[in-house]
Amino acid sequence: MAKNIKPVYYGEYLQLDKLLDAQSPHSKRYGPEAHDEMLFIIVHQVYELWFKQVLHELWSIHREFQQPELDDRAMQTVVHRLRRVLAIQELMNQQVGIIETMTPQEFLEFRDYLVPASGFQSIQFKELEILLGLTRDTRITYDQASFYSRLNDSDRAYLEQLEQQPSLFDGVDQWLARMPFLEFDDFSFWDMYQQAVTRALDRDEQIIRNNITSEQELNAELANLQVNRNNFSALFDSESYGSLQAEQRVRLSQRAMLSALFITQYREEPAFHLAYQVITALIEMDEKLTIWRYKHAMMVQRMIGTKIGTGGSSGHDYLRRTTEQNRVFRDFFAMATYLLPKHDLPDLPPLLRQALGFHFQQRPKDEGAAPAGTN
Amino acid sequence: MAKNIKPVYYGEYLQLDKLLDAQSPHSKRYGPEAHDEMLFIIVHQVYELWFKQVLHELWSIHREFQQPELDDRAMQTVVHRLRRVLAIQELMNQQVGIIETMTPQEFLEFRDYLVPASGFQSIQFKELEILLGLTRDTRITYDQASFYSRLNDSDRAYLEQLEQQPSLFDGVDQWLARMPFLEFDDFSFWDMYQQAVTRALDRDEQIIRNNITSEQELNAELANLQVNRNNFSALFDSESYGSLQAEQRVRLSQRAMLSALFITQYREEPAFHLAYQVITALIEMDEKLTIWRYKHAMMVQRMIGTKIGTGGSSGHDYLRRTTEQNRVFRDFFAMATYLLPKHDLPDLPPLLRQALGFHFQQRPKDEGAAPAGTN
Amino acid sequence: MAKNIKPVYYGEYLQLDKLLDAQSPHSKRYGPEAHDEMLFIIVHQVYELWFKQVLHELWSIHREFQQPELDDRAMQTVVHRLRRVLAIQELMNQQVGIIETMTPQEFLEFRDYLVPASGFQSIQFKELEILLGLTRDTRITYDQASFYSRLNDSDRAYLEQLEQQPSLFDGVDQWLARMPFLEFDDFSFWDMYQQAVTRALDRDEQIIRNNITSEQELNAELANLQVNRNNFSALFDSESYGSLQAEQRVRLSQRAMLSALFITQYREEPAFHLAYQVITALIEMDEKLTIWRYKHAMMVQRMIGTKIGTGGSSGHDYLRRTTEQNRVFRDFFAMATYLLPKHDLPDLPPLLRQALGFHFQQRPKDEGAAPAGTN
Amino acid sequence: MAKNIKPVYYGEYLQLDKLLDAQSPHSKRYGPEAHDEMLFIIVHQVYELWFKQVLHELWSIHREFQQPELDDRAMQTVVHRLRRVLAIQELMNQQVGIIETMTPQEFLEFRDYLVPASGFQSIQFKELEILLGLTRDTRITYDQASFYSRLNDSDRAYLEQLEQQPSLFDGVDQWLARMPFLEFDDFSFWDMYQQAVTRALDRDEQIIRNNITSEQELNAELANLQVNRNNFSALFDSESYGSLQAEQRVRLSQRAMLSALFITQYREEPAFHLAYQVITALIEMDEKLTIWRYKHAMMVQRMIGTKIGTGGSSGHDYLRRTTEQNRVFRDFFAMATYLLPKHDLPDLPPLLRQALGFHFQQRPKDEGAAPAGTN
Repeated sequence: MAKNIKPVYYGEYLQLDKLLDAQSPHSKRYGPEAHDEMLFIIVHQVYELWFKQVLHELWSIHREFQQPELDDRAMQTVVHRLRRVLAIQELMNQQVGIIETMTPQEFLEFRDYLVPASGFQSIQFKELEILLGLTRDTRITYDQASFYSRLNDSDRAYLEQLEQQPSLFDGVDQWLARMPFLEFDDFSFWDMYQQAVTRALDRDEQIIRNNITSEQELNAELANLQVNRNNFSALFDSESYGSLQAEQRVRLSQRAMLSALFITQYREEPAFHLAYQVITALIEMDEKLTIWRYKHAMMVQRMIGTKIGTGGSSGHDYLRRTTEQNRVFRDFFAMATYLLPKHDLPDLPPLLRQALGFHFQQRPKDEGAAPAGTN
Repeated sequence: MAKNIKPVYYGEYLQLDKLLDAQSPHSKRYGPEAHDEMLFIIVHQVYELWFKQVLHELWSIHREFQQPELDDRAMQTVVHRLRRVLAIQELMNQQVGIIETMTPQEFLEFRDYLVPASGFQSIQFKELEILLGLTRDTRITYDQASFYSRLNDSDRAYLEQLEQQPSLFDGVDQWLARMPFLEFDDFSFWDMYQQAVTRALDRDEQIIRNNITSEQELNAELANLQVNRNNFSALFDSESYGSLQAEQRVRLSQRAMLSALFITQYREEPAFHLAYQVITALIEMDEKLTIWRYKHAMMVQRMIGTKIGTGGSSGHDYLRRTTEQNRVFRDFFAMATYLLPKHDLPDLPPLLRQALGFHFQQRPKDEGAAPAGTN
Repeated sequence: MAKNIKPVYYGEYLQLDKLLDAQSPHSKRYGPEAHDEMLFIIVHQVYELWFKQVLHELWSIHREFQQPELDDRAMQTVVHRLRRVLAIQELMNQQVGIIETMTPQEFLEFRDYLVPASGFQSIQFKELEILLGLTRDTRITYDQASFYSRLNDSDRAYLEQLEQQPSLFDGVDQWLARMPFLEFDDFSFWDMYQQAVTRALDRDEQIIRNNITSEQELNAELANLQVNRNNFSALFDSESYGSLQAEQRVRLSQRAMLSALFITQYREEPAFHLAYQVITALIEMDEKLTIWRYKHAMMVQRMIGTKIGTGGSSGHDYLRRTTEQNRVFRDFFAMATYLLPKHDLPDLPPLLRQALGFHFQQRPKDEGAAPAGTN
Repeated sequence: MAKNIKPVYYGEYLQLDKLLDAQSPHSKRYGPEAHDEMLFIIVHQVYELWFKQVLHELWSIHREFQQPELDDRAMQTVVHRLRRVLAIQELMNQQVGIIETMTPQEFLEFRDYLVPASGFQSIQFKELEILLGLTRDTRITYDQASFYSRLNDSDRAYLEQLEQQPSLFDGVDQWLARMPFLEFDDFSFWDMYQQAVTRALDRDEQIIRNNITSEQELNAELANLQVNRNNFSALFDSESYGSLQAEQRVRLSQRAMLSALFITQYREEPAFHLAYQVITALIEMDEKLTIWRYKHAMMVQRMIGTKIGTGGSSGHDYLRRTTEQNRVFRDFFAMATYLLPKHDLPDLPPLLRQALGFHFQQRPKDEGAAPAGTN
């Protein structure tokens, strides 16, 4: 506290004069105030406040990922803030239950006065989608057509320029792709992993052939195994991988995908500790956002039934379809397909392990002056 | 406490010797114990304990609905127990997060040792589905074929005989259908409601015609309105309603649907207080079960990626599809489509209001001996 | 939709220009912005929005309790809104976890700039306490001295006039006290309950005397029983009850307490259905508010340790003490002390049961025209 | 999958025959079954299953802390499992709401049949307390007398031998105390920190003297500051620190406390990343356990009111007092008292920062073959 501080009053600090004066139920303009419109307004305002906070965190994280190199010390902050975003998301998911205390009939008391306003017009939510990395061509078809259709000009312009900028997805992809340990001296993760996969699948095939006597069942199992072989091959072959990308079945670059696999499989190495936590947090962020969309879809169905909306599809159906399609980090979920159990993985070469460890650990232990470990 | 009570010891009362001895990780049979198999076992055991409790409550509720008449005093118990089920469901939905603390790699350490066991073989969960009212022809196609395929004979036999009995859905349908106030003296809810709906839709049409100038937009809006008119007509016309049932677009009987609408629209009448709470609780039960299925689907995708299961579909896809199809009380959600705002509803005739009120309220207020109100 | 509606834009409806412009971190005034001050502001703003909503609901409920008679139809709304308050409270309790994602060090980056602002200055929270029924003499001693000390004049004046008005506690007390069934024809709940209690305690004494052989143990148990007898006696004796009130060991009026007991013990009677739900909701409101205070106390300890605050006590200690003292509906918790198991209770006289039932149920069942039951 | 695996059936794997047969309501022995006794049994059984899982995790963590050196790779597992424990605790805290769906009257239907069983006899919970590090002399007085009093001989013997072993608290204390960086070459954290604290407090004093004109206020503020100075001094002075320990105002060893401070203040250093997460997780574990005790206390008050228990204190009061006293990691909360804001902290010397970084980062960046960073 280096300077003289002006005394602060709680209500002024929080600008409660503005905040608590920003609820004007429209029903009052047309008749008696519908009691529940206040809830409707406040629930949405709280969401917007949380969106602002989530954006505050994600933009700060995004700035780190835009650096040419993600500083090892900054990683702590990145993970910490991602976790905060997850905590807020969890709360937002719980919050769906609040609006559900409003019955459909109570909603009918003022619903017509709000036409054609829609949560679809939340600029902060669209900003969040764009920042995460949802792009026009990865959205559900309906969104592609209508993402901008109901916005005013300045809102549309704001979002359109955001779409020109790199997203968090891009930053994460590049950070993973430049991870330096895929090749290290004469170690190649690709070769090593491909061999480990082949060994595991060969062994599985042997077991199948030894144990299954029914020819029909045998063929089915072998076909199954072949699907797995093909999946794995695509991972290591640039051309096949490129096809998967072209079909939008995978979005991460091949190098990023392999790095993510490497980090996930060897997450106990110190240099991977926080990188693995970043990947996990992104998986959870995607999952929580998807569950938010799904709960939201259920809530809309409960509130307005199957009425057709102005966009030509029921709100419930629209929202439900976004839960599958509008996902940014789905590749990290698919990654589970390609994992091997620990006992099928070779140890890393000693020099690589050393490189991935802490510096102080490398001092010879018998040099008296040096500490023997962090702890 | 009328008799002499044998002293009780906590651990014996809870039979902890059996309970805490029922975890035998299979990984230990084939090598070192996989640390996380304990979690896997306990998470599933907890679910099974909750299923037992939920079944305990739902069967007791089911018994009430099987009575020729649902006693007004028993209603309090029914609502109370439905709420308990909801509280347990909410907890079970939270619990999905626990198994997600197991990473895909940790699962791989013992996954192969469990083949072909599957949550699909939980008899209590299947019993719950049948008790609620899921029937073979309302399940998703995959379920229709495979519901019984992986069970042993006694489990299959148990469930098959359950399917022969009336379900909770049946009980609720009959309870609603016999609700006596749809016709009361010369009052007919159907006529009254149909007129109210017509009035409301006519007014909407007038507003549309007065305000929309673009012919294209006008036609679109009128077409929309016509869809609403048709939906409402089907509600009151036995034949159309029958067609909706035949197409599985609605499952409740027509009379039950109308009663549910009546209760929902006039829920402030004392005789409807708890009936309305029952309907709301059934909506929430359906919603929470659906969200449980959905979270479960996400968890499976996260845990095993997109691997093809033995049933020929990925677990994630299978589970996701059940979230839309395997729902029992969806009609109550659709009911929101047919609601009118309070101000579009006529008052009930005085004699009917009296009948729906409490008995003591009917005593003339000026008779000194009689209380003027509950409160 | 009787009138022409002006089209509405989402952001304008929610007044997002004001809402999202109301966050001005003070750290920026004295140096670089502390990243986490945004979280600090938004978390408190969200609380204030929820407080506004909770007050919106509680004032509307309060208005009903201020009526000379609480209308049976209004009861449905009262219960519904109390439940909404509980749902919001549950969410607010979860929300404590969000501010805990800010570490003590991060708080230190801007904490000094906020002096002497304090959540203690939240007018809405104080309004909530007063509306519920916290009075100067029931607060913890520290509060009695300092409740108004840090407020500006207009805030203090606003709260002081609120203290002059009847509270929700007062309304509930009067509503219970005027409940008409404590005496009904020749039935007296007091007599009946006193006899039932005596029977139960006499039986307990008999069992104790029959079973316990050690004289020391016997005396201890009999002393225990005598405490129970005394507790119950105080309930039925105006003078003893008055002493309990004078010692602030009980706050409800005697008549209200007995009514609450009556409703609780016979809650399955239709006329008591919602009254019982009101009592239960008030218990849960008190419980959730207390847990909020407690979690808040833990959070403060975690955030600032044991530093002495300006009021001469650590924030943690202060908050923790309010959890026991600043409770409004504690009598309903204590009521559990005086309950009897169902099988120790006599049936109500038939005429009283009839009065507590629905009107239509009283028609003779064999009169063909009359419905046989609600359902 | 190296061996042939015996096919597994879901119900057998989970031993559902034992698990679902372990609920025998005692009310049935004395009359009709009390419906809610099933809930009572199952809720407690679920807690016992979670306790088993929590113990499974904590013992595995405890084993790591018992090693002469906590391996850097094992740290990842420690953190991961601590997080799992937190997730389970969060669920257990939610679960308190389930037993609260049982009303006090419903509990009375079978409560007398369970005498004198008590949650106090849960061996697993007592094991958990001992494993964490609750010792006889740190418990609340009541516990000291009665911890073993109601147990059978074998349970008592089991717990008594556990008390002879080192606890998790001991392991954590030793791990922190041997942390090698408190002194490093010519760097001494103690000196550095003491100087930084003095600088900060001197500056605070200057600000106070410059700004406060009222003598009374000035003296109060200076007295306050002196308390802070004394607190800090005690931290660095072995004798004063020893006194604090003797008075049970602090439990961690002085060296461990200083290490925890060091790690917390410089948590962005790679070698401190997970160590800091361990400390944070222990804080949250303590917090969640305390909240569980508190919610439990509220539940008991709600369920049985203020009845005096056999131990001479009401269950509610007993439980409430444990929330403050029976805490193991409270020192980490108090640590917040001693933290400085980042800008009051000096940078670490370059060699120390290097030692705390990753090994690969130390290669000269211009050596072409070497990677420039993790990412």
